[in-house]
Amino acid sequence: MDQPVSEGPEGHVHPGYMQRKDDYLRRMKRIEGQVRGIERMISEETYCIDILTQVSAVTKALQAVSLGLLDEHLSHCVLDAARADSPDADAKLHEASQAIARLVRS
Amino acid sequence: MDQPVSEGPEGHVHPGYMQRKDDYLRRMKRIEGQVRGIERMISEETYCIDILTQVSAVTKALQAVSLGLLDEHLSHCVLDAARADSPDADAKLHEASQAIARLVRS
Amino acid sequence: MDQPVSEGPEGHVHPGYMQRKDDYLRRMKRIEGQVRGIERMISEETYCIDILTQVSAVTKALQAVSLGLLDEHLSHCVLDAARADSPDADAKLHEASQAIARLVRS
Amino acid sequence: MDQPVSEGPEGHVHPGYMQRKDDYLRRMKRIEGQVRGIERMISEETYCIDILTQVSAVTKALQAVSLGLLDEHLSHCVLDAARADSPDADAKLHEASQAIARLVRS
Repeated sequence: MDQPVSEGPEGHVHPGYMQRKDDYLRRMKRIEGQVRGIERMISEETYCIDILTQVSAVTKALQAVSLGLLDEHLSHCVLDAARADSPDADAKLHEASQAIARLVRS
Repeated sequence: MDQPVSEGPEGHVHPGYMQRKDDYLRRMKRIEGQVRGIERMISEETYCIDILTQVSAVTKALQAVSLGLLDEHLSHCVLDAARADSPDADAKLHEASQAIARLVRS
Repeated sequence: MDQPVSEGPEGHVHPGYMQRKDDYLRRMKRIEGQVRGIERMISEETYCIDILTQVSAVTKALQAVSLGLLDEHLSHCVLDAARADSPDADAKLHEASQAIARLVRS
Repeated sequence: MDQPVSEGPEGHVHPGYMQRKDDYLRRMKRIEGQVRGIERMISEETYCIDILTQVSAVTKALQAVSLGLLDEHLSHCVLDAARADSPDADAKLHEASQAIARLVRS
């Protein structure tokens, strides 16, 4: 009945998004459906502009997922490390800043 | 000598990407696989930053698909309309410009 | 009194934005003012988040200028080359597609 | 024992970028020069594509400034608040997350 806590290699017990895991899975399932919809549009030789509109919608949905995960990562993993005066806090922040840069540039 | 064409409902004969349809389908299948990979990462509570890296990769792959489709649309649909002195050319260009704006802002 | 037409090296007489040149200059002047405002905010050690908000506003204003210039370039330079059955049309489109890709990725 | 601080109006002592203020000012001055260069290009009716290339360069330079400011804000303002167990930490993080979202979408 116990829910065993599996501690990860870097010492972070649980990712910050765990409480909203089902919500993220639902959103990714919807994105998967949209991607399959685009495949169908290409198979059926749909007009290019309509495909481009769909691809922009998927990109926006993925961006929203990233921004949500990032916010929870910052508040659960990074702030918690800082609150615990863990020496990891700076390294985790540096890692998060690089993820933000990839996000901004993609 | 005749080049038979099947004219579509809006008067555009064939979408510009038709010749590379299989290539686009392959790329979208790979993107679908990457999206499912992200779902698996979330189910298995993978470290947030690793998920963000994957989401950025999918976004970049989708962007590349969009840029390819757009380029072919401009060269096949828009330029062809201009070459044929079709009155559609300006309307098609306006529509393409709006798709570019959505792409830049997404 | 004549306004001499100076034909450019690649044979494009006038850039497509010429009729709205004053509008673009006005917008760039405003952007220049916003950039100087950001410098002032940094000198006065304004709160970071407020500076970030201003930088995002400038980025959006520059994007709008780019999208406008691109639209006029496509409609005046690229479509006109296609209408004139110029062999340049494809090269010009290829060049425009690369500019779009840079815009999407920046 | 005392750590003297000059506390700002919203309770943030000093913006995180203060130590690198001169570096940011230099970068913004260079961006201002690039913006003026674009104005000159428009006055002189430079070829559109060359202007677009310059605008993309400015956008990238502004993005790099934003990413730098954001990283320093997170590490100095947000982490410090968390380390001091300040109740502000969550509010500051929320504010930073919104700035990240604006940055990603611009």
